[in-house]
Formats: sequence, C-alpha cells, structure tokens
Amino acid sequence: MSELKKMGERAAEASYGLSAMLAPEKNKALRLAAEALLNNKESIIEANRADIENALANGIKGALIDRLTLDEKRIEGMADGLLQVASLPDPVGETVEGKTLPNGLVIYKRRVPMGVIGIIYEARPNVTADAFGLCFKSGNAVILRGGKEAINSNKMIVDIMRKALKENGYNEDCLQLVENTDRSSAEEMMRLNGYIDVLIPRGGAGLIRTVVENSTVPVIETGTGNCHVYVDKSADLESAVKIVINAKTQRPGVCNACESLLVHKDIADLFIPMVSEALKEKDVEIRGDEKVCSLVSGSVKADETDWGCEFLDYIISARVIENTDEAIAHIRRYGTKHSECIVTEDYREAQKFLDRVDAAAVYVNASTRFTDGGEFGLGAEIGISTQKLHARGPMGLKELTTTKYMIYGNGQIR
Amino acid sequence: MSELKKMGERAAEASYGLSAMLAPEKNKALRLAAEALLNNKESIIEANRADIENALANGIKGALIDRLTLDEKRIEGMADGLLQVASLPDPVGETVEGKTLPNGLVIYKRRVPMGVIGIIYEARPNVTADAFGLCFKSGNAVILRGGKEAINSNKMIVDIMRKALKENGYNEDCLQLVENTDRSSAEEMMRLNGYIDVLIPRGGAGLIRTVVENSTVPVIETGTGNCHVYVDKSADLESAVKIVINAKTQRPGVCNACESLLVHKDIADLFIPMVSEALKEKDVEIRGDEKVCSLVSGSVKADETDWGCEFLDYIISARVIENTDEAIAHIRRYGTKHSECIVTEDYREAQKFLDRVDAAAVYVNASTRFTDGGEFGLGAEIGISTQKLHARGPMGLKELTTTKYMIYGNGQIR
Repeated sequence: MSELKKMGERAAEASYGLSAMLAPEKNKALRLAAEALLNNKESIIEANRADIENALANGIKGALIDRLTLDEKRIEGMADGLLQVASLPDPVGETVEGKTLPNGLVIYKRRVPMGVIGIIYEARPNVTADAFGLCFKSGNAVILRGGKEAINSNKMIVDIMRKALKENGYNEDCLQLVENTDRSSAEEMMRLNGYIDVLIPRGGAGLIRTVVENSTVPVIETGTGNCHVYVDKSADLESAVKIVINAKTQRPGVCNACESLLVHKDIADLFIPMVSEALKEKDVEIRGDEKVCSLVSGSVKADETDWGCEFLDYIISARVIENTDEAIAHIRRYGTKHSECIVTEDYREAQKFLDRVDAAAVYVNASTRFTDGGEFGLGAEIGISTQKLHARGPMGLKELTTTKYMIYGNGQIR
Repeated sequence: MSELKKMGERAAEASYGLSAMLAPEKNKALRLAAEALLNNKESIIEANRADIENALANGIKGALIDRLTLDEKRIEGMADGLLQVASLPDPVGETVEGKTLPNGLVIYKRRVPMGVIGIIYEARPNVTADAFGLCFKSGNAVILRGGKEAINSNKMIVDIMRKALKENGYNEDCLQLVENTDRSSAEEMMRLNGYIDVLIPRGGAGLIRTVVENSTVPVIETGTGNCHVYVDKSADLESAVKIVINAKTQRPGVCNACESLLVHKDIADLFIPMVSEALKEKDVEIRGDEKVCSLVSGSVKADETDWGCEFLDYIISARVIENTDEAIAHIRRYGTKHSECIVTEDYREAQKFLDRVDAAAVYVNASTRFTDGGEFGLGAEIGISTQKLHARGPMGLKELTTTKYMIYGNGQIR
C-alpha cells in the first residue's frame, strides 16, 4: 500500500472520530494549535529561512519571495485565523430540512462533515494553518500537499500543530502533510477515490487546470476570474471611476480583481478620459479597442487574447460597446463566471444584467472585490468556487460539509 | 469543431433562453411534449420494435429485453411523467438566502439553472423523456447519450419532442441526442469542459465507474448501493422480518435494495430461522457466515467478496455480529454509503446508528427501499447521488440547479 493510501486510511480513521466531536472540543483544539504556533515562532521562522534561501538559490525573486516569507506578524496572523475559525458557529449537526411523510416516516436532512478533504496548493505557507482550521472546524480530516518551495515551513507548521493535537488527546491524523512534493504525489492524490472525499486546488490557473483535468476524486474548482465592470450610459461616472479603480487596483493579483472594462458608447467620450486618467495615476496599462485607443494616448491596442486574459496585474482591457445586451454577450463569451458588475442608475438595465449574466456573483454599483468569504460574512473562506456543482462563490465552513438523511420509522415498508 | 462541440454550443444557446423562461411557459412545453408522445405511440413502438429485433439478433434476452421494450402503457407512463414534472414547483428563482452587509450591500443568493446537463445512460428508453422533463423544468438544456440498444427508440422519442418544441416556438436544442453510440462519443462527452456543466451517468456500476474515472466535467455519481439491514437484539422481530423481506425482495434489481443482513448474536438463534424461512419463500439465496450456515440448511458460506457485493438479485449475505458498534464497523468497511437500516427498540442504539453510520440515508425501523425521490416527496428524481459533493441521496429538480449571488450596491468599494 502506498504511503498516500496509508495517510488516507489514517485520515479516514481520524475523521470518523472528528465527525462526532462537539464544537467546544473542536474550538479548544484550534485554540491550542494557535497557541502552539505563537510559542514556536522562532522554529517556524528558521524553517522558513531555509525555504527562502533555497528559493533565492533557485532564482526565485520579488513577489514570490514575499508570498513565501513568514515573519512574526504573519505567524500571528495565522494564529489569529485559527482563533477566528474557533469563534465561528459550527456548521455540523444543523438540520437543513425536515418533514413527516404521509406514511409516518420522519425525515431529517442533517449537515455532516465530508470526511477527508485534500488540498493541493502553491507557495504561501499560511494556507497550511488556514486550511487546517477550516477543515477541522467543519469536522473533516485534511491531507495537505503544498508546494516544494514552502516544504520546510509547511513541515514545521504541521509538526507544531500535530504535536499540540496529540499532547491534548486529539488524533493528530486530522492533519497530515504530504512531504513528497514531486509531481507524482499530487497525481496520486488526484486519483485517491475512496480515501479522499473532495479535492480543492488553491493556486494559479495552471495548478487548477491540472487538478480539474486529472482528478477522478471530486474537485471543487476555485479561482480564475476574468471579471468585468460595465459602465452603462446612465452611470454615475464619478462612482464608476471609483469602482473601476478599486476593482482593478486595490489588489490586482487576486481572482476578484477587474480585468476588463466595458463602456457604453454614449458616454465613452466623457468617461474614458476620466477613467484612463485615474488608471494612469495608478500605473495601470490600458489595452483598448480602436475607440479607446483613439481617446487615450499611450494605450495599447487589445488583441483577441486580451479580452479573455486574467492579467492579475496592473493591466486592464477596455472596450466601447453598444448597450447592455452587447455587454452581456461579451461577458458570456470572455467571462469566467466569477464576478461581474454593471454601473448604472437605470432600473431596467440593472435588473437585466443581474438576471442575464451567469456568474458566481453579479453586482450593481459595487466593486467586484467584495466576492470574498470575509466580506460576505462567512467568517473565513477556503476559496472561491467558480464551478456550479456543490458551491458557487466564496466557500466557508458550510461548503465543507455535506448532508445525510436520517429517517425515523416504526416498521414502514413499501 | 467536432459534432459534439457543435451540439454543446447549440445547447449553451438554448440554455441561455431557457434560463430566463418562467414556469408557465416551461410547463406548457412539457405538456406539449407529453401530448406529442401520446399522439405518436405507433411510431415509437415501431422504432422500438427495431431495437428489440436487433437486441434479439445480438443474443440479448430476458430482463434486458423487458427493460428495452416500450408498449402503449409505458409510453403513457412517459407522458404522465412529463405532466407530473409540469405540476411540480419551479426551483428556479428561489431566493435561498439574503442579507444586508454592514456596508449597505444587499446580497441575495438565488437559485439558477446549471446550464447544460449531460446524461449518459443505458438501455431503458423511458429515461429519455424523464431526463428531458427534469432538466427542462429546472431550466437546463440537456444532451442525452443513450445506449446503442435503444438508439432507434431514443431517436424517435427525441425527434417527436423536439418537433413539438419547435412547432410551438421553443428552441428545440434544449433537447439533443448524441446519435453516435460508439464508446468514443461517451468519452468525448466526459471531456467537454466548457460545454457541459455537469454529467450524470445513469446505469450499472460499470458505466458509473467509467464516467467517474474518465470525466473531467464535474460528475454526480449515482447508484451503487450495498445496503445493510442490522437487526439489533431489542428489535421487534416480526417487524424486522417484514423490513428485511421488503428491502430485499420488493424490487431486488435497484440500488436501494438490501444486500446484506447483520444480526445481533443474542437473537440470532431465534431470528435467523424466522427470516431465512421468509427469505426462502421468496426464493432468496442466503450467503452466510459460519453461525448463519449452522442455523440455515441449504445456505452457502459467504466469502469476502460477498460482503462487499451489490447482488441486485435474489441473494443476500448474512452475518451474526457482537453489537451495534460491530455493525457500524462492518458497514464502514463494506458499505457504499447509500442506505443503511437498524431495526431496534432501543433508543441509544438507534441514535448511535443514526449518528455514526455515514450514508446518504440512515433508517431506524423502515425499509431501505424508501430512498427514492418519489417516496421522499421530491416529485421525481434524476438519480440517487452516492457522492458527498452537491447532492446526497435522491436528486429532484432542486439538485439540478446551482445558485448565484446578486448584489445590490450604491457605489461601495473596498
């Protein structure tokens, strides 16, 4: 039996115990894990230093090094995250619906844990603690498979939390880390049906595509967002500029950032210079259609790939369109069904856009950056689902559970 | 572009219109389709005759021929099914939850169609009309890929319903049939990401396994049920006999039929002769452990594979166990997480079994045969999900939908 299957068996055993654990006991474990992280900051920073040295030696630099780096403040952030999850309501045990059938059978649909969750992720080592917290609170054992860049940090963080669990009488196999970071271990995880109930990839588009294409274990697809802001002819233009700037630049590297701007033709001459000035102040490159280029000096002509591109950078594509219908058609063609926004003062256009755009989140007069578990009041999130099965949009604790029917009879037969 | 991708594009276009269609208009289409089937019984029976002749020529016989056969009554059943779906409430447009955030954003989570559903199924041609009805009512376009045995029947049924749609101004591409029944067409469907939003296999364990293992499109796994009835020492033994007989023999070929009987050791000497007599009356073969074999003349010794086997036949495995914990452990090891039952008068044992058995449906004192969309009051079902993502247990109209967040703002930015 492979090492991963053995991990899967241990995880199943741990999840069986965890599934019956009540909230106070789970919350206590999360607080102990948080405390252990705070008590071992130095060991974590030391392990992290080894990762950074390896990364630098391998020519990695800039933002990637920043994402990999753990300092005291980030470790405190990880511990705070665990405490915050401890403070959230427990989704397990909720009765979702219930009824009595005409034959007297009483049926309850109860929320229960999934069982074993696999998470494949990339460089950020703080995901390690976050993912554990959410999975544990929702009653699931987790098998984590991080990237090789963060392996020393991940091992240390997992060791510290497992030790805290074990010393306090919890089954430490609720949390396991795949230490083999070869491609082969990720591939085996993707085919571990019967051991892993659901697999969640967290990372770039390439990772997510690989998991979706190769996994036979059910996957929740997260992430890719080619989000549009459509500025209708009736828009409050000052508000529209603020929304575009916020959606594009408040944090350009994330999936709910705006990548493409659509502007109604009737206001193009007025609005495009306004917004391009504001974008230029933030050093955003504009890739426009002919009309946009004619209005904005220094803008680059967009080609077909730009319309479909998730830049994750200080770049925005921009196009002048006829009306809301054309905006909707453009989004149908190029969007990734993540977050889409119309800026308008017109009731009919607002309703049409909300009804007809197919996405996890559709906005009127607000930044697409709000598509987030914390912002939506879920308390925390494991990712943003861009698929239609199971969960759509930000996923919190509830989305890490399933249900089971519990049926009370008194001898009924068919 | 492949024929299937073209079908996918037409389905996407049709689903876009269908997603905005209100219930009365959808119900009218379903009634028209039902009427068309009734008006064309003879053509359907004629096409079906060709399928039966081919099947007989290929050496197919018995139950399979019966499943393939359409007569007037079965066609009326198909039409009735469509009318019944027309009479069910429309799941689309329901507001699942809603709230106002502290920043004034108003968020609604609304139920919307999936988009395009693919269904891969085997010989029974009545699935063709059933699946169309459920997908259409829930606002989804459907691409059907039936088995080669029923291809003439399926083509005729689909042609008749498409014609009814078209003549009445509906987009007939809401319903499309893959006419190529080679393995290659099923394989291509499994990889049609971007065209098919969800794939549902309906059929035997082999078909389902193939789809789960090969599909990159999200799949809802249906079907396999190795269901247990555990008779506790406190059980009402007469009721227990009725439940076992019903669960095993009322319809042995379906996934919610009982395949395995577990009996508490304290009542084995009394109960096993009672139940074996009743089972023998129904010509059920018993494959037992040593103790069962010692009590039942003519029973066969069960081997390891029998405990895990979904017989779908007049065969039951039977085992004497120590207590409820051992029953739960046995089910954890051999069960398929479909439907499990305890027969007991003991409160603690009942609650323990309900809490600790991980399955789509867990019963106290009732036949496992109730795990069914119709019985659960869903009105109709597209299948019984045995996975934990999205839907678990019988799936009705609601399970063919997803949700989207609709957010009303007034200029909010982060």
